[in-house]
Amino acid sequence: MSPAFAAVDWGTSSFRLWLLDSTGAVLAERRSGDGLAKAAAEGFASVLSRHLDSVRSASDTPVVICGMAGSRQGWLEAPYVAVPARLDDILAGSVPVPGQGREVRILPGLAQRAADAPDVMRGEETQLAGVAPLFASGSHLVCMPGTHSKWVEASDGVIDSFATYITGELFALLSTHSILRHSVGEIPAAASPDSSAFRTSCAEALALGGDIGSALFRIRASSLLQEQDESAAASRLSGLLIGAEIASARRRPAADRPVILVASGALGLLYRAGLELAGSAVLSADADEAVRAGLLAAAKRLGWTRGTTG
Amino acid sequence: MSPAFAAVDWGTSSFRLWLLDSTGAVLAERRSGDGLAKAAAEGFASVLSRHLDSVRSASDTPVVICGMAGSRQGWLEAPYVAVPARLDDILAGSVPVPGQGREVRILPGLAQRAADAPDVMRGEETQLAGVAPLFASGSHLVCMPGTHSKWVEASDGVIDSFATYITGELFALLSTHSILRHSVGEIPAAASPDSSAFRTSCAEALALGGDIGSALFRIRASSLLQEQDESAAASRLSGLLIGAEIASARRRPAADRPVILVASGALGLLYRAGLELAGSAVLSADADEAVRAGLLAAAKRLGWTRGTTG
Repeated sequence: MSPAFAAVDWGTSSFRLWLLDSTGAVLAERRSGDGLAKAAAEGFASVLSRHLDSVRSASDTPVVICGMAGSRQGWLEAPYVAVPARLDDILAGSVPVPGQGREVRILPGLAQRAADAPDVMRGEETQLAGVAPLFASGSHLVCMPGTHSKWVEASDGVIDSFATYITGELFALLSTHSILRHSVGEIPAAASPDSSAFRTSCAEALALGGDIGSALFRIRASSLLQEQDESAAASRLSGLLIGAEIASARRRPAADRPVILVASGALGLLYRAGLELAGSAVLSADADEAVRAGLLAAAKRLGWTRGTTG
Repeated sequence: MSPAFAAVDWGTSSFRLWLLDSTGAVLAERRSGDGLAKAAAEGFASVLSRHLDSVRSASDTPVVICGMAGSRQGWLEAPYVAVPARLDDILAGSVPVPGQGREVRILPGLAQRAADAPDVMRGEETQLAGVAPLFASGSHLVCMPGTHSKWVEASDGVIDSFATYITGELFALLSTHSILRHSVGEIPAAASPDSSAFRTSCAEALALGGDIGSALFRIRASSLLQEQDESAAASRLSGLLIGAEIASARRRPAADRPVILVASGALGLLYRAGLELAGSAVLSADADEAVRAGLLAAAKRLGWTRGTTG
């Protein structure tokens, strides 16, 4: 079947493109490090063309984009949609990029404008659109782990509120730049969700209600006093940070409901383990599939999946 | 009066030397960035000689040193004294550095070997010795803010336990390397303890019981959505981190007692403001004077203040 459109998840540090048919089946895929920083130097249009050419896309295949490309520092600002918001408000808010010789649209992010809890997301709202059936009715808590994890409250298909935890960024900073770098080694080992170091530390953070302020330095002290190895130190750091995030997020509304976990790969397994340690029931969805499904929903709404293009 | 000895506080990134008479009066002072990293390259003996020469010290003036110079990565390891410990255990544990043509002694640090709460300090124990009269009897909580803040429980002159918070390091990492660097500006403004941004954020962190997980990213979101200026963003980061540290530390034993705050300059004022917001009574001591007083106590114990040398 011929491509109906190209779907792009364009983040700060990564660029992912899929050629999809009108049912959402993947015909081709590209992943690269051409995120915002690199694209700003080369030019967004040029980066996009290069990747479209590399998958031999037709010159008139339309493109729908989500992520930081729609930020003020990105290609073209797609103004935030304010919460509470229906998923359709997001899909309806795409902004056309002019002068591309084909249809190119960028989806908006979400903004929470509450004076005491301002927050923003760009990219995760499209994953939410992709898992819409999971929270179409009832009250739900969605966990989307990453560099900047998002926790979302949704009820009856409406996104009510959300919060961001910079957990992934903290792990990277602490393991490469802080005193803890001496403990975790030059290339920190990936934590295993089954390891005792991860599970014990995650449970400790949960028991402390997320108060890991003095537990972080204990990782360093354990290396000095207790001959802790580097892999255990890295797993402990991961367990403490993920446990603290979950402990904090479980104070949010709807925290007693099953958590919809939208994640991929190793990180998803760590969060699943952490959520289960916290006593949460977990429904898992794959983040890659979710973002493609969200971009497909946007393409459908734009009328690109009726075989009229590509 | 002639110098009785030289006192040195030798940390990871700083080197401070005082020539003191037998009463502890300062006859000369040197401050430099010749901390562990630089001293390891030049040689510890050479750095020390250079600074002693620059204050025209006599060649036989004895030297007492505290801080990271006594760590395994330092000049000569001065093995940790384990808590619970009397201050005299620390002063009695100094290790002679051989072959210096004069007496050179390094004071030990403290180790907490409890399996579930390992911790270490090097340098702050000497400040504690310097403020010993403040906690000679009764139960006390001592706060020593810094890159790695130490909170110490002491009763009747015995150091019972302590905990480390890497608050200063977190502030530096978050303001220079994280997403928040876009909000606080290239050189973050120093927070004022009277500013509304600092006080509101510190109070928020205290009210949250230290759970600032999602409050950190709100600093970024406020820049995007609420036109927050860079100085306010930096003050908020400072307020959140200090408030979270105090909220956590107030869960420790003796937290209902007046807090002995051992600090200098601007940081001391911020912690005093935070402690007062938390409802703690505060007794302040100057950290520079404390470390000199601790080194003087060590020199006295070594018999260097009887006019026999210098």
